[in-house]
Amino acid sequence: MSVNIVIDTLGGDNGAAAAVAGAVKGLQKHRDVKLYLTGKKAELKKLLAGYEYDKKRIEVIDCSEEITCNEAPVEAVRKKKDSSIVVGLNLIKEGKADAFISAGSSGAVLAGAQFIVGRAKGVKRAPLAPLIPTSTGNSLLIDCGANVDAKPEVLVQFAKMGSIYMENVMGVKKPRVAIVNIGTEEAKGNALVKETYPLLKACDSINFIGSIESRDIPFGKADVVLTEAFVGNVILKLYEGLSKMILKEIKGSIKSSAKSKIGGLLIKKSLKKTVSSFNTGEVGGAPLLGLKGLVVKVHGNSKEDEFASAIRQCKNFFEADVSNKIIKGLAEDAAREAVTEEKPEEEKTEKEKTETE
Amino acid sequence: MSVNIVIDTLGGDNGAAAAVAGAVKGLQKHRDVKLYLTGKKAELKKLLAGYEYDKKRIEVIDCSEEITCNEAPVEAVRKKKDSSIVVGLNLIKEGKADAFISAGSSGAVLAGAQFIVGRAKGVKRAPLAPLIPTSTGNSLLIDCGANVDAKPEVLVQFAKMGSIYMENVMGVKKPRVAIVNIGTEEAKGNALVKETYPLLKACDSINFIGSIESRDIPFGKADVVLTEAFVGNVILKLYEGLSKMILKEIKGSIKSSAKSKIGGLLIKKSLKKTVSSFNTGEVGGAPLLGLKGLVVKVHGNSKEDEFASAIRQCKNFFEADVSNKIIKGLAEDAAREAVTEEKPEEEKTEKEKTETE
Repeated sequence: MSVNIVIDTLGGDNGAAAAVAGAVKGLQKHRDVKLYLTGKKAELKKLLAGYEYDKKRIEVIDCSEEITCNEAPVEAVRKKKDSSIVVGLNLIKEGKADAFISAGSSGAVLAGAQFIVGRAKGVKRAPLAPLIPTSTGNSLLIDCGANVDAKPEVLVQFAKMGSIYMENVMGVKKPRVAIVNIGTEEAKGNALVKETYPLLKACDSINFIGSIESRDIPFGKADVVLTEAFVGNVILKLYEGLSKMILKEIKGSIKSSAKSKIGGLLIKKSLKKTVSSFNTGEVGGAPLLGLKGLVVKVHGNSKEDEFASAIRQCKNFFEADVSNKIIKGLAEDAAREAVTEEKPEEEKTEKEKTETE
Repeated sequence: MSVNIVIDTLGGDNGAAAAVAGAVKGLQKHRDVKLYLTGKKAELKKLLAGYEYDKKRIEVIDCSEEITCNEAPVEAVRKKKDSSIVVGLNLIKEGKADAFISAGSSGAVLAGAQFIVGRAKGVKRAPLAPLIPTSTGNSLLIDCGANVDAKPEVLVQFAKMGSIYMENVMGVKKPRVAIVNIGTEEAKGNALVKETYPLLKACDSINFIGSIESRDIPFGKADVVLTEAFVGNVILKLYEGLSKMILKEIKGSIKSSAKSKIGGLLIKKSLKKTVSSFNTGEVGGAPLLGLKGLVVKVHGNSKEDEFASAIRQCKNFFEADVSNKIIKGLAEDAAREAVTEEKPEEEKTEKEKTETE
């Protein structure tokens, strides 16, 4: 199957050059991919001229406007109809593209995705779910998006979507789902967690393992780390900030003496891999799930490789038919819930029957 | 002035030996301190026999019960009247002691402090406020306690108490107060932050600098990091877990080759300081503020030095008269608020007067 992917070439820290390099790399690696590049046509043509690639598989779409990170997202999306974000998302809406990748304003991408692409059938809210590095691999942190103060039923859907994503895109069998809490006992938590916990426990279609304290997140104790967006955002950004700070402090302490400076040179190569995995606090692009198409937000400082990885991620997503699996899964859960809700009524009738007999 | 401090010698990971060693060290450093040790008398007498100290300044109080971390805190505090925690907290209630230090069950210490010691005049809730390490020193993370789903007025009091603590105990002039948020713009946040923000802005008695994103916390961008307890707990425990994980990964990568192993030996000494400051994710003891006495929760794995530091912390707290400063500060704010609330009424009357004249 062929997957059509839009790449927003504006808004990233490394300019259109990084997006174009990644696009060409992705194109060369994956045969069944067609790319649309939204951005400044003249610049893109110039950049593309430096590469050899299958010209039929890249289409440049000129956009006269750009949304920056300093603008109010909702307003920007409404006003700037010819921006690379709005034009790109409209390609999904019109059915011309399946996925959209952007390193631009997170707020504008999130807002635009909801307004323009729209939610898939049965989806209450669309969660943003980045992969975060752990000592055993990666965990999906869901939700880090714009759904602050979400309701328990919404969190249950997030758990379900996250499970389907981890199983189908990341290949994790029966992903362990845990809800972020301030203790591991069932009675612990704030009002939201206390209300959500029994719903998760009753949900047969996920592998719910209970609460997870944030200190256990970095050790990979859950594959799907479920939380409301405000807390998710705090976790994601603290992951990023604290990693940066600790690595900076370690570099500082290595430079503090001549002896340790030599030591630093010797460990440089071994350290590099560890350091790079924590550089942004997240791995690859963060998918916005539950929409009529796939929207992937890559980090603002993404380079060639990050864009190319995001292309692979989109391809895997569609080849594994994740969108339809999510729609089907949520519909099944909704049907099951409807049956469960009707049950007490039936039981009552049975009991009443016995009494009258 | 003399300060009477209770040290709970049970419940810590390193047993009564660590508490006793720290107690003696604190006693030797600070002349005006008297200590009560709650725990198992026979064991304490035996441990104390190994030290030379002023016997008039340490009193051992035998307790027949112990509260463990596996017990439901509230129930344990209610039932185990002769536990080292309950007996110790009662000494504050009876006016015999000013402060209480424990490495035992956080839940039991928090619950006991609220039930037994009680809140100071004007205090709505008592926040737990650990110091967390940053690249520029330490910040006070307030609240990490049991007050989940707190109201905006409660958070404003926490900001005030945190400021007084940082100014008087830690010597930070005009401590910068920021509220944890998912963006720095005033319009960002969940319902709680949006309601609390304008109240903090209107509070003249604190140096409110706006929102702080969690990625900026490790870089010391605020002295008082204000947040609701659920989020505070997530931040504190992620600080602990992520530091541990990154340091473990770095050790692992150093051990991955013979060359880097040698490098590791050379940087060992320089690294040690950096590593130790992140070991627990917090610095010293976490004070529970706003009570009729001071309750300090030290980390479960506290050793001699941590107990001795907590003794100094309690001494500073009372010498700087922080308790009374908090009560006075909150009363002043309450009075100012009352005036502000009355104002529109007065203005209206003035206007009405003019109209009738």
